[in-house]
Amino acid sequence: MSFNTNDFRDIDPGQRVLMGPGPSDVPARVLQAMSAPCIGHLDPTFLSIMDETQRLLRFLFQTENGLTIPVSGTGSAGMETCFVNLVEPGDEVVVCVNGVFGTRMSDIVNRLGATLIRVDAEWGKTIDPEDVRKAVQGKNPKLLAVVHAETSTGVCQPLEDLANIARECGALFLVDTVTSLGGIEVALDKMGIDAVYSGTQKCLSCPPGLSPISFSPAAMKALENRKSPVVSWYLDMSMVSSYWGAERKYHHTAPINMIYGLREALRIIAEEGLDARFARHQLNHTALVAGVEAMGLSMLVQEGERLPMLNAIRIPGGADDLKVRKALLNDLGMEIGGGLGDLAGKIWRVGLMGHSSCRRNVFLFLSGLETMLKFQGVKVREGALEAASSVYA
Amino acid sequence: MSFNTNDFRDIDPGQRVLMGPGPSDVPARVLQAMSAPCIGHLDPTFLSIMDETQRLLRFLFQTENGLTIPVSGTGSAGMETCFVNLVEPGDEVVVCVNGVFGTRMSDIVNRLGATLIRVDAEWGKTIDPEDVRKAVQGKNPKLLAVVHAETSTGVCQPLEDLANIARECGALFLVDTVTSLGGIEVALDKMGIDAVYSGTQKCLSCPPGLSPISFSPAAMKALENRKSPVVSWYLDMSMVSSYWGAERKYHHTAPINMIYGLREALRIIAEEGLDARFARHQLNHTALVAGVEAMGLSMLVQEGERLPMLNAIRIPGGADDLKVRKALLNDLGMEIGGGLGDLAGKIWRVGLMGHSSCRRNVFLFLSGLETMLKFQGVKVREGALEAASSVYA
Repeated sequence: MSFNTNDFRDIDPGQRVLMGPGPSDVPARVLQAMSAPCIGHLDPTFLSIMDETQRLLRFLFQTENGLTIPVSGTGSAGMETCFVNLVEPGDEVVVCVNGVFGTRMSDIVNRLGATLIRVDAEWGKTIDPEDVRKAVQGKNPKLLAVVHAETSTGVCQPLEDLANIARECGALFLVDTVTSLGGIEVALDKMGIDAVYSGTQKCLSCPPGLSPISFSPAAMKALENRKSPVVSWYLDMSMVSSYWGAERKYHHTAPINMIYGLREALRIIAEEGLDARFARHQLNHTALVAGVEAMGLSMLVQEGERLPMLNAIRIPGGADDLKVRKALLNDLGMEIGGGLGDLAGKIWRVGLMGHSSCRRNVFLFLSGLETMLKFQGVKVREGALEAASSVYA
Repeated sequence: MSFNTNDFRDIDPGQRVLMGPGPSDVPARVLQAMSAPCIGHLDPTFLSIMDETQRLLRFLFQTENGLTIPVSGTGSAGMETCFVNLVEPGDEVVVCVNGVFGTRMSDIVNRLGATLIRVDAEWGKTIDPEDVRKAVQGKNPKLLAVVHAETSTGVCQPLEDLANIARECGALFLVDTVTSLGGIEVALDKMGIDAVYSGTQKCLSCPPGLSPISFSPAAMKALENRKSPVVSWYLDMSMVSSYWGAERKYHHTAPINMIYGLREALRIIAEEGLDARFARHQLNHTALVAGVEAMGLSMLVQEGERLPMLNAIRIPGGADDLKVRKALLNDLGMEIGGGLGDLAGKIWRVGLMGHSSCRRNVFLFLSGLETMLKFQGVKVREGALEAASSVYA
């Protein structure tokens, strides 16, 4: 096989400003931690690093749950982990769907041979707890699943009512916190959440590759009481938990250097403090929205239901979606996201996640967008930067 | 929740010499590549990096297979990927078992509701093709699976006869190359392999976290012709292949920085050349065995069936398994592996994988082991280093 090694140059991905739906900008400290020497997955030093990572994750999830670990895959692997461990063929499972990730959960439930009870809301709106209450009447669901922060629309789902409904009908409450964790409060024990998964590349500002999960005692009991084996060997938490727990029983080789990175990302979060971090996300979001609305553009999601870390902006008439995004990427090195599914071509998704949530990025985006729109002949009002500035004043 | 961030110090895993069953020592170039800035998983620059990674993987696997990609999980995720995509409930599946990883494949086949046809050999011996021939008589297996390099025993499985049997009975030929890839020849197209998975942390000398896989046209056809959906959404190659292929359809967020690292590890392999790399593994293995045998110790596996990258040494009478390994780790910073299952306490597993396969490590291990054994009062013959040296002469 002819093969010229000169075809391949040193890695040089450039330096983007990541304001899409994830990944977010990764701090140098995290990248440095990831480049520490690789050691064995049963080395006592690594076992300590695992323990510390679990302690930091429990702090972030505000939980005492024993099984609180990073799954060795991305956020979608975390989603699959929760369902394959807690759902058996024939179980009734309620899935709330108001975007791409609720749809994905439904797909997984169907693959597992469970009975799907699907509760829909329009994309861009929250799930109405009354619809869930109606859907579970006369049913005996094992699990009620919802997305906290729908990355495809920017909707923030209130969890209290849904947690109550799950409790009332004896179902486990499963929450997707891929995009919310580290940006808004995810307090498992207080909120009555039984199972949760997240991702590292959103508000944790660590590269993608791991999925933090946590199971409550009730979820662990459901796992122990299964009648059928977990269909996935790789994600079987009855075995994986032995490796992360006191037994240290080898299951699969942990992604060592990714865990170094996650530990550092969590340490940065702990140093900032959860309240300060959530306030920072809220502030930069408020400034971005003020600027966007001052320009005369509007948000997809109504006020009070918006996520601070994922801002869905309606694309104004006359603007060319792809041209704007390409110009931002090529001219300013800035990534923002387009819409998915029915929202393709209708919204831009602007992330202010973790390390990317800062005043500089708000300004860069507003000035960049204003310039690109004017260049395309789209009418925009003046005063975006002033409006954003006044939020910080 | 009271939480003291001062409890957590900068990451400092130390600098080990990794001579266990994996991970192996990671070259600085790979660690540096992993610490390049994270960019988006749909960024044109990253798409080029994906394309290059696929080209490099095809070179390493010596294949023209379209679907040749790193799965977003460790080697065990690659194992699961092959089975969940190619096996349906009720299918007959032949699994050859002569160690931990054949056992794991059987476990996965059972979880999928397939009919397992298990062919066993003693741990430390190769699978006898005649046993496989007998087992498939009158059967109609969909798949025949075997481990090329059994990491738990150090046995190298010859593949030619098994490939022929698979072809004769119309089964897909699936090979676990987690430990063999990059250390001995894995030439998919020439060897008639239909599906393969590997790991990054063995002879590729990249941190763990990805699993290179490849499917032949026949395997892709089996995937297309499935009657039931793939039970795993995360590992469903009918969707993942769209992201890695021309469509670039978003599935899950790729582990960006891990892929940077893999690309660099593959580039290093391409620069060394496959033949030179295989010869290096063989040479260092020969020297290690010469030294071990000169000491009066013996190998678990008979000559001619040994893997060059995983050396299973029988623990001599009077030696304390754990004390020797702990002393090597604590005094010399060197990790070697113990035995698994029935071989626990009976063998040491000494890896010479990828970057770890070098003359310096052979010398360090032989001199370290000799010293520790003498210290424990175990009789060892003199001349190990001289015997090893003569191999290099």
